[in-house]
Amino acid sequence: MAQTAPDTLAQSRYAACIEACNACAATCDFCSAACLREDDVAHMARCIALDMDCAAICRLAAAAMARESAHVSEICQLCARMCDACAQECKKHQHAHCQDCAKACERCAQMCREMAAA
Amino acid sequence: MAQTAPDTLAQSRYAACIEACNACAATCDFCSAACLREDDVAHMARCIALDMDCAAICRLAAAAMARESAHVSEICQLCARMCDACAQECKKHQHAHCQDCAKACERCAQMCREMAAA
Amino acid sequence: MAQTAPDTLAQSRYAACIEACNACAATCDFCSAACLREDDVAHMARCIALDMDCAAICRLAAAAMARESAHVSEICQLCARMCDACAQECKKHQHAHCQDCAKACERCAQMCREMAAA
Amino acid sequence: MAQTAPDTLAQSRYAACIEACNACAATCDFCSAACLREDDVAHMARCIALDMDCAAICRLAAAAMARESAHVSEICQLCARMCDACAQECKKHQHAHCQDCAKACERCAQMCREMAAA
Repeated sequence: MAQTAPDTLAQSRYAACIEACNACAATCDFCSAACLREDDVAHMARCIALDMDCAAICRLAAAAMARESAHVSEICQLCARMCDACAQECKKHQHAHCQDCAKACERCAQMCREMAAA
Repeated sequence: MAQTAPDTLAQSRYAACIEACNACAATCDFCSAACLREDDVAHMARCIALDMDCAAICRLAAAAMARESAHVSEICQLCARMCDACAQECKKHQHAHCQDCAKACERCAQMCREMAAA
Repeated sequence: MAQTAPDTLAQSRYAACIEACNACAATCDFCSAACLREDDVAHMARCIALDMDCAAICRLAAAAMARESAHVSEICQLCARMCDACAQECKKHQHAHCQDCAKACERCAQMCREMAAA
Repeated sequence: MAQTAPDTLAQSRYAACIEACNACAATCDFCSAACLREDDVAHMARCIALDMDCAAICRLAAAAMARESAHVSEICQLCARMCDACAQECKKHQHAHCQDCAKACERCAQMCREMAAA
């Protein structure tokens, strides 16, 4: 492992996927809080719950990749599935924060799948 | 609060500081793992410990800002102090990952201080 | 530091405070999800947001104490203030999960204050 | 879901598994920091890295269960595998914190497997 290890984060093969995970986490966190301010908050309950789930796994995946964890592949697979679930729910809602969140989740899911397959 | 709330994360006054916190967290996580692979790992123990501390508070700060938390100011002040401590230690080591980490910590500390003062 | 370091978590002076933080985090997470299932979810929005804040800092505080972090005192002080804010809001609501959460937050705040003062 | 939802965390079917995850996370965090203080820290590098991984997924699992997440089963399965990996490494080391950690990981893995199968 030592001989192939990168010297800086920028050199890491995970750099782009870490950014996608961090962007997705922040977008999910933002969406959860914005949903709580909507008039139809009861209608947004499932979206809020999935946002919380998705933000948590995205942050864990970003940290695991940054630490070159031995479990990156499994974590990224789970992250992709949880991003899918959040994207599917967010897409149903016309709020700008939900539409934004669906896009961030879909991008993160795709990058995590590519990472898990590499 | 509702009338001034942004519709998307990109509109959030916190967007740049969230990115700085996420970048700092990933750089700290990377540095901790890279330090563990160094020959002089015993010499890096304090750096690893501060990296872990700093990564954790940076991720919490990013999440709090994304959720427009009522505690953003206090959290960013603490984050800035913990970034300072990590930067100070990282600066002592010539490894590329430590030098990189010191820069990310200093940038994050500055942005968190500006955010806390705003 | 090395000579006074405990050999096991059970010997750590932080053991009881870690448990209080973990209990508080889980109670806050539970409360946030339970609030989302309530009929008056719009009325619970602030409670949900503070639950999320409090759960996050309690988990960070537990981890920092377990790692014998150099920043334990500052973190526990912030954790205590965020527990106070969550307890104050939870107390306003008669739901069993809110009343439970207020108690867990008050206990955690007190233990964190004692830890920060030690 | 609403009709079967528990009113308090103590009533949750997840309560015992959450405690096992929190105990495991704290024990892993403690072990990672204690390993960094050992004379043979280079020999402990893999243990430290797996401790960090395991602590992170245990905290995420505890939070997901507390929030009655739709993804509990998948998360607990991954948590069990990451606990296994950490236990296997910790067992190799005679330090009290490593032996303690192996036990906490094994207990957590078993409880997460039972939860995922339920």
